[in-house]
Amino acid sequence: MSGDVSDEALALMDIAALAPLIAGSEVSPVDVMQSQLARIEALNPDLNAYVSLYPEAALAAAKEAEAEIAAGRYRGPLHGIPMAVKDLFQVAGMERTCGSRILAEGVANSDATSVARLREAGAIMLGLLSLHEFAFGPTGINPIVGTARNPWNTDRVCGGSSSGSGCATAAHLAMATLGSDTGGSIRIPAALCGVVGLKQTYGLASRAGIYPLCESLDHGGPLARTVRDAALVLDAIAGVDEADPSTAGARVADYTALLGQPLEGLRIGVPRDFFFDRLHPDVEAAVQAALVVLDGLGAVVEEVVLPFTREASQGWNVMAMGEAHTVHGTHLQNNAADLSPDVNQRLRLGEGLSATDYILARQTQARVRREMAGVLERTPILAMPTAVIPSVPIDTGEIMVGDKSVIGWKVLGKLTRLACFTGQPAISIPCGFTQDGLPIGLQLLGPWFEEPLLLQVADAYEQATEWHQRRPPLAV
Amino acid sequence: MSGDVSDEALALMDIAALAPLIAGSEVSPVDVMQSQLARIEALNPDLNAYVSLYPEAALAAAKEAEAEIAAGRYRGPLHGIPMAVKDLFQVAGMERTCGSRILAEGVANSDATSVARLREAGAIMLGLLSLHEFAFGPTGINPIVGTARNPWNTDRVCGGSSSGSGCATAAHLAMATLGSDTGGSIRIPAALCGVVGLKQTYGLASRAGIYPLCESLDHGGPLARTVRDAALVLDAIAGVDEADPSTAGARVADYTALLGQPLEGLRIGVPRDFFFDRLHPDVEAAVQAALVVLDGLGAVVEEVVLPFTREASQGWNVMAMGEAHTVHGTHLQNNAADLSPDVNQRLRLGEGLSATDYILARQTQARVRREMAGVLERTPILAMPTAVIPSVPIDTGEIMVGDKSVIGWKVLGKLTRLACFTGQPAISIPCGFTQDGLPIGLQLLGPWFEEPLLLQVADAYEQATEWHQRRPPLAV
Repeated sequence: MSGDVSDEALALMDIAALAPLIAGSEVSPVDVMQSQLARIEALNPDLNAYVSLYPEAALAAAKEAEAEIAAGRYRGPLHGIPMAVKDLFQVAGMERTCGSRILAEGVANSDATSVARLREAGAIMLGLLSLHEFAFGPTGINPIVGTARNPWNTDRVCGGSSSGSGCATAAHLAMATLGSDTGGSIRIPAALCGVVGLKQTYGLASRAGIYPLCESLDHGGPLARTVRDAALVLDAIAGVDEADPSTAGARVADYTALLGQPLEGLRIGVPRDFFFDRLHPDVEAAVQAALVVLDGLGAVVEEVVLPFTREASQGWNVMAMGEAHTVHGTHLQNNAADLSPDVNQRLRLGEGLSATDYILARQTQARVRREMAGVLERTPILAMPTAVIPSVPIDTGEIMVGDKSVIGWKVLGKLTRLACFTGQPAISIPCGFTQDGLPIGLQLLGPWFEEPLLLQVADAYEQATEWHQRRPPLAV
Repeated sequence: MSGDVSDEALALMDIAALAPLIAGSEVSPVDVMQSQLARIEALNPDLNAYVSLYPEAALAAAKEAEAEIAAGRYRGPLHGIPMAVKDLFQVAGMERTCGSRILAEGVANSDATSVARLREAGAIMLGLLSLHEFAFGPTGINPIVGTARNPWNTDRVCGGSSSGSGCATAAHLAMATLGSDTGGSIRIPAALCGVVGLKQTYGLASRAGIYPLCESLDHGGPLARTVRDAALVLDAIAGVDEADPSTAGARVADYTALLGQPLEGLRIGVPRDFFFDRLHPDVEAAVQAALVVLDGLGAVVEEVVLPFTREASQGWNVMAMGEAHTVHGTHLQNNAADLSPDVNQRLRLGEGLSATDYILARQTQARVRREMAGVLERTPILAMPTAVIPSVPIDTGEIMVGDKSVIGWKVLGKLTRLACFTGQPAISIPCGFTQDGLPIGLQLLGPWFEEPLLLQVADAYEQATEWHQRRPPLAV
């Protein structure tokens, strides 16, 4: 027992609820960590969220946090909070694999910038979370380090590439996590696992120490159980970092500043033309209901047309394949047989691209950004599904939508690439469940560096609904 | 006669000297224009600086300027000044060719942004100046629209690609001109024709309305007879332009602000390792003497090492060839036979480049920029020759350096690409003549957006020497 909260319940709490108890020494970070580790021990063998776990170091850090707080040196809402990051981040004292057998980096002796900033804020690192190999795929199926299983149905994928981050956050195996997102890799697992996933503006948070996939499209950001918790993590990681030149123009804000403000009169655009025509009916119904909720909160929900989504998708594809091949070309050359078959195949797509293909894709990116900026002038927030389908079975990788079989990896990123291509912020929040109990995500996009507004809208929706309070059916 | 200045002498004056006379109505813009047109009529048939000339429109504009000034509406130092631009710029009422027979654009109905800004400042456009076809070559040899001839020796090239801009400025066929510079195309003709050529910081002046060659490397900037005149032109053209997103971060200054300030203690770095090993001996001697002058002005001249020049040159090559092919690929496909043979060949170099080649070159660019920034922290100004050789004969394209024959187009850009790759500002100023009377240019590089400092150093050198006062041996 720790104060008035049972040990088991500690691991189930939100950061925002737990933090004041830690701050007031009503709850000890050591008890929180023990509760957290016990839950991981019980559930991770089935869920496979963690590739590697460092319980002794985590417990030692919890004791340090306890001592610091007892000495009056409370750091803020992340102090003593157990967190974990995708096995793509450098964490001092941990051994990164990137979900691959090709790298043999050994134990890292420094932190990725975002990890260092979380630790400065007092967060404690539990370990490294599963992912699609090299973060290059949307399902999280990984024959090398094992596939993380969806807490809502362990026969299903978590979505990827930050599969373990989605899994651990949903199953309360960490209070919040970091993932990375090049085409949807934070938002897809957030949607499929029923948690919040935020891809902040390109250039707002450092990628230094995150193994690159596509320099122009990569983002590292939070998955959490509430919008407020995601905002607290963003507060810690946002800001200029000399080690990542893309952050040179970062415009930082207080990310909880607008939470709780009314949405009255805010215009929200719904680009129906962009929704894939084979939208799963349960996804369609849940998103439609979510729009009604937003309307009820005073927002002005209206149709918008995004005439550039097809060229954005093609442009993303060329840039992503070209840049991924640039990073992993030597792996393809020297270690092809060691790669997951789908990653091997995906990497080959970049081989045949010409400089002109790539240059034209960058020109498309610049044009799409300008056109998106025009759209956001009228409707600063755009609402749509995060993914066109819910999670798919791990063994087949596909599900029926109506009378057609749909292959997960082909469609899961359809609606998330756009915000990576434009660089604008995007968030996935829980908005319902399929008839067979799988989570569904609502995706909101906002203007560059206006995360406070985006989080305000997401939080207002969350406060008006109860989806985020449901817990996956897991027996400890 | 116009006031106390003879009509012939008007065309020979610097802008800075002429402007107060125009401002005070001692000299009429109409007389200036008549003097200018008479000189063009006399000399252009031999020199071939102009591809097209619009004397009636220029004279009408001069009358308008005269009336405006008489009515008390003097606009500033460019008011009533005859100028001309490279035939790569859109000028309303003029027909652009880009030195090619492929385009058939007809008469333009709007100005390039920089032309519009010059006209707002009161400058008058005479016509469009010769160039290497599509600005894609360093000699200015152009079998399509004719080759501009060097005013110092009409058997020689002007250097390119802004050959006509160098020619017209040197021969006083315009008081100042605009050129464009992707790898040296302003500075090389400035050096070979004995005038000042300034390539300002990437993103400081708009390229909107300049036919693109390589989006990431293109700059449009001034050629003038003095540093101060170049600063006056930059004053007019610098600044953010929505039509050219690269200018979004433009940091504008007063470009004559520091002229005349002493150089005492300023560190100037000399990267001798970077000088091509077949430097023409007269170039070497002139640059060496220039360094002595700078030292005499109080600057601290010291050796620096630029360990990145080879990879910068290779990276520039990949980016330039890839981007040029992206712009002109369809011309190559549909109109190969209409292209100058060397441009045809050069464009083909971009065909075989892969996306990964290009992406790696961009990464090199980012790294070289950071390393250059480190060098400039100690020595904010770098000094070197503009070109390793003086002008070459038009017919052979090559000259002897010692006992070796050197091919002009292969070496003329050796020392100028670097500043296009880094995007930092660079200027070429006259620093002497070869034994056979051909001009030699001193190149100075400075920190990004610190044109006031760069111009200060160039002006101090110019004031201490008389090279810029010599006039080519032309008989009107």
